[in-house]
This record gives sequence, C-alpha cells and structure tokens, in this order.
Amino acid sequence: MTEQACDIKPPVEVLEWVGDARRGHLRLLDQTVLPDREAYVECRDAQALWECIRRMVVRGAPAIGVAAGYGMVLAGERVPEGRDFTTGLEAAAEYLESSRPTAVNLQWAARRVLGRANRTISDDFDYIRQAMLEEARAIHAEDRRMCASIGLAAAPLVEKCTGLLTHCNAGALATTGIGTATAGIYVAHARGRELSVFCCETRPLLQGSRLTAWELMRAGIDVTVITDNMAAEVMREKRVQMVITGADRIAANGDVANKIGTYGLAILARHHGIPFYIAAPYSTFDLDAPNGAGIPIEQRGGDEIVQGFGRRTAPQGVKTYSPAFDVTPGDLVTAIITDKGIIHPVDEERISKGLGV
Amino acid sequence: MTEQACDIKPPVEVLEWVGDARRGHLRLLDQTVLPDREAYVECRDAQALWECIRRMVVRGAPAIGVAAGYGMVLAGERVPEGRDFTTGLEAAAEYLESSRPTAVNLQWAARRVLGRANRTISDDFDYIRQAMLEEARAIHAEDRRMCASIGLAAAPLVEKCTGLLTHCNAGALATTGIGTATAGIYVAHARGRELSVFCCETRPLLQGSRLTAWELMRAGIDVTVITDNMAAEVMREKRVQMVITGADRIAANGDVANKIGTYGLAILARHHGIPFYIAAPYSTFDLDAPNGAGIPIEQRGGDEIVQGFGRRTAPQGVKTYSPAFDVTPGDLVTAIITDKGIIHPVDEERISKGLGV
Repeated sequence: MTEQACDIKPPVEVLEWVGDARRGHLRLLDQTVLPDREAYVECRDAQALWECIRRMVVRGAPAIGVAAGYGMVLAGERVPEGRDFTTGLEAAAEYLESSRPTAVNLQWAARRVLGRANRTISDDFDYIRQAMLEEARAIHAEDRRMCASIGLAAAPLVEKCTGLLTHCNAGALATTGIGTATAGIYVAHARGRELSVFCCETRPLLQGSRLTAWELMRAGIDVTVITDNMAAEVMREKRVQMVITGADRIAANGDVANKIGTYGLAILARHHGIPFYIAAPYSTFDLDAPNGAGIPIEQRGGDEIVQGFGRRTAPQGVKTYSPAFDVTPGDLVTAIITDKGIIHPVDEERISKGLGV
Repeated sequence: MTEQACDIKPPVEVLEWVGDARRGHLRLLDQTVLPDREAYVECRDAQALWECIRRMVVRGAPAIGVAAGYGMVLAGERVPEGRDFTTGLEAAAEYLESSRPTAVNLQWAARRVLGRANRTISDDFDYIRQAMLEEARAIHAEDRRMCASIGLAAAPLVEKCTGLLTHCNAGALATTGIGTATAGIYVAHARGRELSVFCCETRPLLQGSRLTAWELMRAGIDVTVITDNMAAEVMREKRVQMVITGADRIAANGDVANKIGTYGLAILARHHGIPFYIAAPYSTFDLDAPNGAGIPIEQRGGDEIVQGFGRRTAPQGVKTYSPAFDVTPGDLVTAIITDKGIIHPVDEERISKGLGV
C-alpha cells in the first residue's frame, strides 16, 4: 500500500542531489520568490546551505531535515582527508544546526549522517563519502514514505468530501514528498477524485496563498484562496466538509501547536459540525510536554502585520500583538492522522499506545 | 445625558462646511490616503462630491448621508435662480444618489434637503439657500447625537472591560460623530477609563488597521492591531472581555449583516463566554428582511485578496472567493446597542417594540 502512494510524485522537487558523493551539490527550489517565479539555488558547500536554511529558501521541518542530511555530504567534500576527517564533519554538523536552532529534524538528520561516517571505518575517504550520501538518500526516502503513509491514511477521509479547508503550508513544499496536511489530497486526486480545496491565505506571512495555492494549482487540483476571516462563512455555506492542517508540535495529551489561526478554525469547525483533522508524522509528538500549556508560543515582530508585503497598512508606531502559533486543545481535534495510522479519539492513552511508549 | 456625550469631540472632523450658504464649500478628510497622510479635499460643487463619494474619500453610511445633505447646498449655489430652481435641485439629488446607489442614507439626506427647499416659498434665493444649509446642518447634528446616544448606552458595558475587540471600521471615520461601535469606547475614555482595544486588521481592505487603529491612536486610546486569525488566541488569553462591531443591515429577527469575519468572531466569542455586541443606529434595521437569508451578500473581486498589499501574494490565475459581508444569527448576538437604547435579548418582538412598529 505504502509503495503505491510513493508513486505519486510531488508537484515539485523541493530539493535534489545532483552528481556523486565527491563532487555533487544540492539544488534547492527557492521558496522565497514563490509564487512569482520558480527559481533554483545550487548549494555547493555547507555555508551556502546554512544561508538557504536561514533565509527560508528551504523551509518546513521535514524538508530542512533532508537538506541537512545532504549538507553533511557537502561538508564531506570539503573537509580535508586524514585523521581529523570526522572531527571536521562534527564541526560542520554543529554549524548547520546553528542555522535554525529550533528545528529538531535538522539536528537529527545531520547527526545521523555524521554517525554513518563515524561507523564507516576506512582509509578510502570516497568510500566514506559514498556511505554518507547513502544515508542522506535514506533520510530523503523515509521522508517521502512518511508523507505517503499519511496520505494513504488520510485519503479515505478526504474522499468523503467534495470540499475541504486547509491553513498555512503543510504541503509538498514543507517536505520532500506529498506533504502532511496535503498528502491525503494528493492521494485522492491521483485516484481521480474531484476535490475543491479552500486555502486560508494565513496572515501575516501568507504561506497559504503564496505556497499552498501554488503547489496545489501546479498539481492540477482545484484550489480557492480566501482571507482567514472568510473561513466561517465558507463553512456555513457548506462548501467544505472537513478542515485539515499540519502541526508544529503535539503534546502528550493531544494539544496541538500550529500556525496562528488553527485554534480558531478548530472552534469554527466544531460549531458547524465539521471534522477537524491534524496530519503530522510521529516525530512531531513531544511527550515531554504533558499538555499545550507547556509549549512556548513564539512572538514575532509587528512589521509582518503592519508592513507585510510592500506598503504600510497601519499607522506609524501602532502597537501590534503577533503570536506565531496557537494551541488547539486535543478535544477540538477529531483525529490525528500520522504515518503510523490514525489516532481517534485524541487522548493521552491512545497517543502513548500509538507511540509504543 | 445626551448633551454630555455630545461634548466629546470626535478625534477628527470627517467633514466640515466652510463658509456660508451662498459661497461655501465642503471640506472632506481624504480617507483614501490614511493612515499614511492626513489630507483634505475641498468640494466646491456637486460633481466634486460625487467623485469623492465614489472614490471613498468619504465613506460609512452615516458620513455619506451628512455629506450628501451638504452636497445639495453645493448644488443650490450653482443652480440658476428662477422658476426652475427646485427642478435643478431635484436633478442634483438624483445625480448625487447615483454615486453609491446602495447607501440608503445618501438618498434620504439629499431628499430631506430638497424637501426643505421645496417648502421654502420665497423669491429670495439666498433665503432658500440658507434654509437648505440649516437642514444640512440639522442632519449633521442629528448624526452626531445618534453616535453620542449609542456611546452613552454602550459605555456602562465597555466600562466593565479592561480590553475589548472590534472589527473593521464603525468608528468616527464612518460617521460625523464618535462612531457607532467605537462610541462607547470614546465615552469611557473621556470618563478617564483605561481601556485596551484590539483591532482586527480586517482583510481584504484592512479598514481595521488602516482606519480604526488610526482614529483610536489619534484620540490617545491604547490600540493594538492583530491579524484576523489571531482573534481566537487573544480571547483565550483573556485579553478582551467583549467584542463590539457595527452593522450594515439588521433583519427583523436580529440577524446582522456586517463586514466579512464578524460571524466568525461571534462564534469565537460564544465559545469563550465573551459577550458579542452590535452597535448601530435604528436606521440600520430593515424590517422588510424577515431574517438574514433575505440579505444579499455582495461578492467582490479577487484582486483585493491576491494583490491587496501592493505586490502579488498568490499565484497568477488562482481562484478566489470573496464575500464582502456575512450574516451573524441574532442568537449569537448578546445585545444590539442602538441610539434608542439596548435590545436584549435579541428577538423579533423586542426589535419591533423598540422600533415602535
């Protein structure tokens, strides 16, 4: 079953390794210029990748993780051969991790490729480099399978709908596969199912209108952009029969931290009797946080609100308040769709059972 | 009591008649360049005013009505003296009404000044012009009193809060007084009450961040701009204890048509146990509409969504859906605060009793 969904190509390759382990490089889709232009950035060393991660040329925790794996291969091309090869690699891993310190996938992937190098005992450094590239490719393949598994689990739910609503971008652009929140949509579409996707623009940074709309259009899926405050009316008019979003972190009791606006959508869905789903890999669960209260909410600068896209849209000097995320209580979540199956209803017992804790 | 609130000056004069009835003119605050600049447009004939209403230099049904009253005085300056004076005025009224055909206040005010001219039987045309200016000034004064009455009714509710949330602009800029949704805020502020106002930016046209934030800041009231999708989080954090908005039309059963996003805020307020108020003059009730289903919802062009901030923020050719208004069912409205008192709970019987039907 999983293999079948793996056959669904994402609408775009977010990243691609070009060449071999000795003189290869990483090609990244430049997400900073979407949807205006489709441009690529070629990263030939770890420093170039560091810049790209920092500037959000590549974004989304899963995609960043895969990129960091290849970033270690880039480092391996430059680190001098000899006794200090792995010491050099270790420094490279630390360096890459400093690009976005909170993205846990980044650290995990860099360390995994480093570990593979450490375990490959050889005087042939090309042999070590080859092993590192294999490991990076394995991380890449696993990420695609993770998306595919979520897609297969979500598809039967998606296929019950003629319309659905999503928020922000938990799509192909945030992974190297068919996304998380979007995975079921791509699977249903590949099966010939006609779907109408409503996409909240997602202020302040507009990832919904800039990114999700772009990738769904590119895949030939019917997509409609609305402003965030139109979601309630779209639900009332029965244009959507489910809401599905991704997650940034899920607490042990099922409380979900995700892009600001998600919590409001969950309340609106409940009011209209529409199921509200979270799609996320198991790696998103943080059992150290017993509930949402333990998840810190990042505050961002007001410029994104008052001067987001060129012109100023609020008085000079006005106060702003800009939480980047909110926490949706688990009891507003109909089910969490993971790469290991569906958790329903959402509670601590089922989550820990699913995680095998 | 009303006189007392009338003493509260609005933070800015949206319009002002300058000069006498013979060679006077109408000065309008140019709301199209707010919040960047504070500029004024001088209207010296009915055609100039027609352009200003069409371009939304002056906006908000109450303010447009007052402007149209003075617009008839402008017409009276130019219409040739003689037997056809009132015929000329009638043509001017029709012309002014064509600037924004749906604004019922516009027609009502122009006809009222015309009626005054018709009832003033004199060969002294300056005497007729003087009567017309008096009538326009009376409309203006009534509009200010309407705002003041709403403010006095709303203030005791506002004064129970440390923070409140509003949407769009039903403020001083939409009237010639202290606004409708904002009236209670201005009265409470004048009484020395400290208040924190959260203002949804109100996509797609951003009347909240562009206009409401501007006028409240100017009055020295503490105001914070948020994106529309942050409202639920602000409620959860208990930063606001009430939501108050204006209304575009209220049906006989209390269903309220207002700016898109109002309905969602009402649901979120209910979920958080926060009262949700509508502030509107009695002229907003439309008893010909038995309920919200009878109120047509204007659809607007997608450019406001995909190109609202200056640069394009969605893929070329993407579909959009853009209802300009939504309808909040009366049972989600805690009370309607009018210039004739507070309607609570909101139902058909109390509304018709209040209207004296």
